[in-house]
Amino acid sequence: MVKIMYLSPVAHRAGHDDLFADMARDYKLPGTEVHVTSLPEGVGRFEHIEYRSFEGMVTAGIIRATRAAAREGFDALVIGCFYDTALAEAREVSGEMIVTAPCAASCEIAASLSNRFGVIVGRRKWVDQMQATVHALGHRDRLAGFYHVELGVTEFQADHDRTASRLLAAGRRAVEEDYAEALILGCTMEVGFYAEVERQLGVPVIDPSIAALKRAEYGALLKRDCGWKPSRKWSCEAPPEDEIARIGTFDDGPAFGGRIVVAAEDGRSST
Amino acid sequence: MVKIMYLSPVAHRAGHDDLFADMARDYKLPGTEVHVTSLPEGVGRFEHIEYRSFEGMVTAGIIRATRAAAREGFDALVIGCFYDTALAEAREVSGEMIVTAPCAASCEIAASLSNRFGVIVGRRKWVDQMQATVHALGHRDRLAGFYHVELGVTEFQADHDRTASRLLAAGRRAVEEDYAEALILGCTMEVGFYAEVERQLGVPVIDPSIAALKRAEYGALLKRDCGWKPSRKWSCEAPPEDEIARIGTFDDGPAFGGRIVVAAEDGRSST
Amino acid sequence: MVKIMYLSPVAHRAGHDDLFADMARDYKLPGTEVHVTSLPEGVGRFEHIEYRSFEGMVTAGIIRATRAAAREGFDALVIGCFYDTALAEAREVSGEMIVTAPCAASCEIAASLSNRFGVIVGRRKWVDQMQATVHALGHRDRLAGFYHVELGVTEFQADHDRTASRLLAAGRRAVEEDYAEALILGCTMEVGFYAEVERQLGVPVIDPSIAALKRAEYGALLKRDCGWKPSRKWSCEAPPEDEIARIGTFDDGPAFGGRIVVAAEDGRSST
Amino acid sequence: MVKIMYLSPVAHRAGHDDLFADMARDYKLPGTEVHVTSLPEGVGRFEHIEYRSFEGMVTAGIIRATRAAAREGFDALVIGCFYDTALAEAREVSGEMIVTAPCAASCEIAASLSNRFGVIVGRRKWVDQMQATVHALGHRDRLAGFYHVELGVTEFQADHDRTASRLLAAGRRAVEEDYAEALILGCTMEVGFYAEVERQLGVPVIDPSIAALKRAEYGALLKRDCGWKPSRKWSCEAPPEDEIARIGTFDDGPAFGGRIVVAAEDGRSST
Amino acid sequence: MVKIMYLSPVAHRAGHDDLFADMARDYKLPGTEVHVTSLPEGVGRFEHIEYRSFEGMVTAGIIRATRAAAREGFDALVIGCFYDTALAEAREVSGEMIVTAPCAASCEIAASLSNRFGVIVGRRKWVDQMQATVHALGHRDRLAGFYHVELGVTEFQADHDRTASRLLAAGRRAVEEDYAEALILGCTMEVGFYAEVERQLGVPVIDPSIAALKRAEYGALLKRDCGWKPSRKWSCEAPPEDEIARIGTFDDGPAFGGRIVVAAEDGRSST
Amino acid sequence: MVKIMYLSPVAHRAGHDDLFADMARDYKLPGTEVHVTSLPEGVGRFEHIEYRSFEGMVTAGIIRATRAAAREGFDALVIGCFYDTALAEAREVSGEMIVTAPCAASCEIAASLSNRFGVIVGRRKWVDQMQATVHALGHRDRLAGFYHVELGVTEFQADHDRTASRLLAAGRRAVEEDYAEALILGCTMEVGFYAEVERQLGVPVIDPSIAALKRAEYGALLKRDCGWKPSRKWSCEAPPEDEIARIGTFDDGPAFGGRIVVAAEDGRSST
Repeated sequence: MVKIMYLSPVAHRAGHDDLFADMARDYKLPGTEVHVTSLPEGVGRFEHIEYRSFEGMVTAGIIRATRAAAREGFDALVIGCFYDTALAEAREVSGEMIVTAPCAASCEIAASLSNRFGVIVGRRKWVDQMQATVHALGHRDRLAGFYHVELGVTEFQADHDRTASRLLAAGRRAVEEDYAEALILGCTMEVGFYAEVERQLGVPVIDPSIAALKRAEYGALLKRDCGWKPSRKWSCEAPPEDEIARIGTFDDGPAFGGRIVVAAEDGRSST
Repeated sequence: MVKIMYLSPVAHRAGHDDLFADMARDYKLPGTEVHVTSLPEGVGRFEHIEYRSFEGMVTAGIIRATRAAAREGFDALVIGCFYDTALAEAREVSGEMIVTAPCAASCEIAASLSNRFGVIVGRRKWVDQMQATVHALGHRDRLAGFYHVELGVTEFQADHDRTASRLLAAGRRAVEEDYAEALILGCTMEVGFYAEVERQLGVPVIDPSIAALKRAEYGALLKRDCGWKPSRKWSCEAPPEDEIARIGTFDDGPAFGGRIVVAAEDGRSST
Repeated sequence: MVKIMYLSPVAHRAGHDDLFADMARDYKLPGTEVHVTSLPEGVGRFEHIEYRSFEGMVTAGIIRATRAAAREGFDALVIGCFYDTALAEAREVSGEMIVTAPCAASCEIAASLSNRFGVIVGRRKWVDQMQATVHALGHRDRLAGFYHVELGVTEFQADHDRTASRLLAAGRRAVEEDYAEALILGCTMEVGFYAEVERQLGVPVIDPSIAALKRAEYGALLKRDCGWKPSRKWSCEAPPEDEIARIGTFDDGPAFGGRIVVAAEDGRSST
Repeated sequence: MVKIMYLSPVAHRAGHDDLFADMARDYKLPGTEVHVTSLPEGVGRFEHIEYRSFEGMVTAGIIRATRAAAREGFDALVIGCFYDTALAEAREVSGEMIVTAPCAASCEIAASLSNRFGVIVGRRKWVDQMQATVHALGHRDRLAGFYHVELGVTEFQADHDRTASRLLAAGRRAVEEDYAEALILGCTMEVGFYAEVERQLGVPVIDPSIAALKRAEYGALLKRDCGWKPSRKWSCEAPPEDEIARIGTFDDGPAFGGRIVVAAEDGRSST
Repeated sequence: MVKIMYLSPVAHRAGHDDLFADMARDYKLPGTEVHVTSLPEGVGRFEHIEYRSFEGMVTAGIIRATRAAAREGFDALVIGCFYDTALAEAREVSGEMIVTAPCAASCEIAASLSNRFGVIVGRRKWVDQMQATVHALGHRDRLAGFYHVELGVTEFQADHDRTASRLLAAGRRAVEEDYAEALILGCTMEVGFYAEVERQLGVPVIDPSIAALKRAEYGALLKRDCGWKPSRKWSCEAPPEDEIARIGTFDDGPAFGGRIVVAAEDGRSST
Repeated sequence: MVKIMYLSPVAHRAGHDDLFADMARDYKLPGTEVHVTSLPEGVGRFEHIEYRSFEGMVTAGIIRATRAAAREGFDALVIGCFYDTALAEAREVSGEMIVTAPCAASCEIAASLSNRFGVIVGRRKWVDQMQATVHALGHRDRLAGFYHVELGVTEFQADHDRTASRLLAAGRRAVEEDYAEALILGCTMEVGFYAEVERQLGVPVIDPSIAALKRAEYGALLKRDCGWKPSRKWSCEAPPEDEIARIGTFDDGPAFGGRIVVAAEDGRSST
């Protein structure tokens, strides 16, 4: 069995945990246990982190959650936002736990199924930062472009018909005008739409939260079966625990704002 | 269950199939069936494909094997050479079958565990082409360098002590002088050495044949569970079957030079 | 006198040899002898190699032809397809013979006559691979774009008026909308159209088969007069002949499917 | 008069404020008022932020300080760490206040005085991230390399002779072996050494805290005299104030852990 | 006090000196003295240098003027053309004088106020060269594009309404269609329009002659207060004076075609 | 017959014309006429142009010579310095005449004979600029490095044994330590040494003045036989002749400082 934590870097009260618990139950391997979590109240009542400063405000919370998950013995952690928020920071303090995130995971899959892909995002505002991430991951020459649908993070699940029709229109634009051969949905809140877009457009459409969950599971299995754990050399060096203790804010307060356990046997329980 | 073909793009008589069957049995998931194959005699008595022209000579054989594997219903295929020989060509004719290869698979893992990795190869001769592959995959800025140990493909398994000591020396150079944080063994014939190098140097060391097998399995599971299959749009378009029939050499002769089946239940049988 | 082989990497029966023999006769220097050849039947009845897998299937044939040409004492070889199919593989086994190909040759000329050029191709399907080639050659910043005219390789010579009007429209788009300052016709089967497009659009238009022939002749003269032959060092090392003999498929069967000799004195004879 | 805040993103108790107040008094223009600040206790007792996770932990504090400085009417803010920690996040919430940081400011100056520069850092651990920053700023081709002196942030001011001799040795290596034409000291705690290194090596040596202060002053003057303020369009859009209020943690607690005012008339007072 | 020379690399008779003297008086710091100059008659009657060959013809004049300014003790020199004509050449012979130019200065400012900017130029003809400059400066990923308004250098000041409306239209295109977050006016003769464009489009609009003047002043102050002068190491080495004397054309004839002095006290006098 | 001008952009009195006339006679095709020229006295007594400012001072002379050569009906012009000085400027005013230069010509040849080449230069001072040129030409990934031999331009021909032994040592370093597969001599004054270096090191060694002459001849033949002339569109637009006349310095004074004619029939006469 491998144990994975799926962390939405927003407040528990945002109420997304159920969505991702359903996703985890539907897509994980039988032997995988998934805990779906989100951030505690103290970090702030974030319903989304569309702004860089919002990401910056929740970063401490992500770091605390990462440390807590590592201490609990999780094999892998997903930071559930397509900005891959605080991925480098979390990896530094994850010990032997694998950390992954939706943008990295989705691009890997899209790059293995096509030579060129487009990313459908909510607002143009996101593009500059996400594009830099896709470039840094190494997919500059595979990127057809970003396509925004004028919906904020919290609007994707509000009116499903509107969301579906906008995703389809954007995907069609990517495929027909910019020659994309695959698509990535560029927000974890676009969950639930990929199969329909795929069916209508006839190209692979990657859902980022599923991709991240599966990548975490893959990483966890590689760790368990091949022994491949995070490097701790040079830039991957972890800070000394005594220094962390002296600083004093790394482990303050609760690490999570909620938790739904999707058991290896596929059951599910909330805390 | 998912079914994976591991194809060594050299002649069956090279006798590597056993090595990779052992590897597959040790590292696959329980529900995975692996067929370890190599090329038929007609392609040529290739014991290695260190030269570009050798790769070119076996490419038709890889294409034929890919088509045969797809027809047999395999979920994924590994082309077992660190040059990722004919990966693009094979992907074009793989139908719904996933195709992957060691260099792509290894770099993905190394990039998820470190910020900078080195690749240990046999001869300097290989570097120009492999470096171009690593760059094209998107890992230019993560590449510490290539380190050659003055051993040809067929020499890695000849004298294990010599191989181990050279891999260690090269790995140490990568880590200490060029600040590599992880290592990749840049030849599938380096199989069997990664754990020892990892233990001695204290950084993740990726074995490319294991990495490719696991990536194939991961891709097969993504296909089965999420429906993510190869794109067939634009540059991914497959050639029409009637044209292939007219051309007449795509399916000539036997597709494989041997086959060892590592069953899902971990058994193993030869043909 | 220098001797050049112009090899169309398709079946002789495709019947293009006459076209390229006419071209050679019209454009070569008086002291140059050109043999126009194509692949033997055994490679497959390829009329075009628009697919990556088609290229992969003919690669062994190109390698065999290269070796045969080198043995015959040719000074230079052209691989007559704008994909520059198997250029690296052929160069490895060419001995002292120069090998060149249309895309490389055309880009060099366009780059010397303008700061920015566009490439007119048949189908969008080709672009991903050709663009990667143009980038790898070093012309990324000079590339205005690729412009497809919805014609397959075998259609260019079918209806000359249709081809001419589509090339013109695509070229105009490149020049007027994307500010191309020169054009390259991105398929050797576009032969015969460059002068008219050039006349109408007022920018240099490079024909790729002429460019490749002339680049081969230039390379042959540099070899003859300056002694500049292919490097055989490091990644340019040729495989040992005894190993090739042991493998046994390098020199199987006929190397060419036809041959038209355009003599130095401009005569012409078929075999 | 322009007003600049110089913020050390570490705890006030780290005791660096005096160093930077002296620097500010020595290098600012007469009409400039500088407030030297650091982070409040609640952020954690950080004496340095050498680790990515340390940066992540102080990011919320930097965002709060930025908002507070903007509300107080500062013209420009310096985030005083060579990682340029949270620069993008701070810029988003700075309103009309300019935000700058040492790495960006130093590279601009070095690039205007030379064609190639090296950066002298404390530990190899820093390089991966700082190099990515220098590349992203656009100086990839001007970078001779990074040179580490095996000193942590807090050690630079501990033994001045040791620090001076190591900076000199590293600088000499950069200039003599890698052909650097200018140097940047890659840590604000290297303050006080640039003039001596410059004198001994005969190339410009940029101190990053002075560079950042002067760049802030320059930006403040450009804003005052030319009206050039931060863009708020597209990716530069600021989050809505009502949403920030609803979230509730943006303005919690004290924004600063200390403050030394270096008055426009050069006086100086502590709080 | 710092002394700056603003050199228009065109003939004095072009009559632009007054425009730039007004600009200097309006934007310089009180303690700065600016001499506005242009080239002497002997260089040629250049009213603009829109062509590369025009730039080439005035380069000797720029070099002579640079040497003369350095001898007169100027702290900094502006070469007042958005091509940044002869910047590298002038920097080589400037001794301890700082040399800057509009494109470099403008991009620095735009990059500090936004993540993505567009450049509004006169004619499409300019773009190839200016784009290469912006790329070389390091702003490739920040460049939204170039937008031409079909006006030559000498036409910008001819009909102010026409110029204003075209700049606005081009700027709107950059912001609305290509998501520019800031704009740069890509010709020093666009002087006088930035404030209005800024007001109407709501994004920062950088005037290149002001930017260059202010960057020169900033560089001069850094030199005076921090001691940061041009490197003279490796590629920055200046030619030996005795060799220059032997060559004999470096200091021929008058260095300037006119001079307006904008005194530190803001007064102004012509010669 | 084609007519080529080989222009050394230094003073005639530097006395290099004989060297290049010998080279031209030895390497041109029989039907080619070559005029070897240099700059007139008025440009300055330049014996070399190792400094950027020296190049800048002779640029007007190169432009004048280009115009004169075009008027005389030359088919192609070589600017005989490895800096490829003023290539873009000269191309703009060359009318239908082809213009080329040693660095561009040499890299094309080296790239066609190897995958990786090194450049042997005189002084480290040259590297920054030449490297930028090689990168801009598109050979960044093929460049093994630059190797300087501590000789100025005028010293290469002073002591042939010293030059030969230094070129050999540098070439050996490039090949053995940095894995160069071909070499380029990075100064036209290294003429006469390539064959010996090639013989001793066993890799192709490109002489830049021969390369440039042959490339000019190749370009001239392409123009004559295929009609491929310089583009005059967009950034390649030539300045209007009436404007040039009005400016008045384009055609001042003699265009050349000397001329040796190497006739098509291989004869040779001086003026």
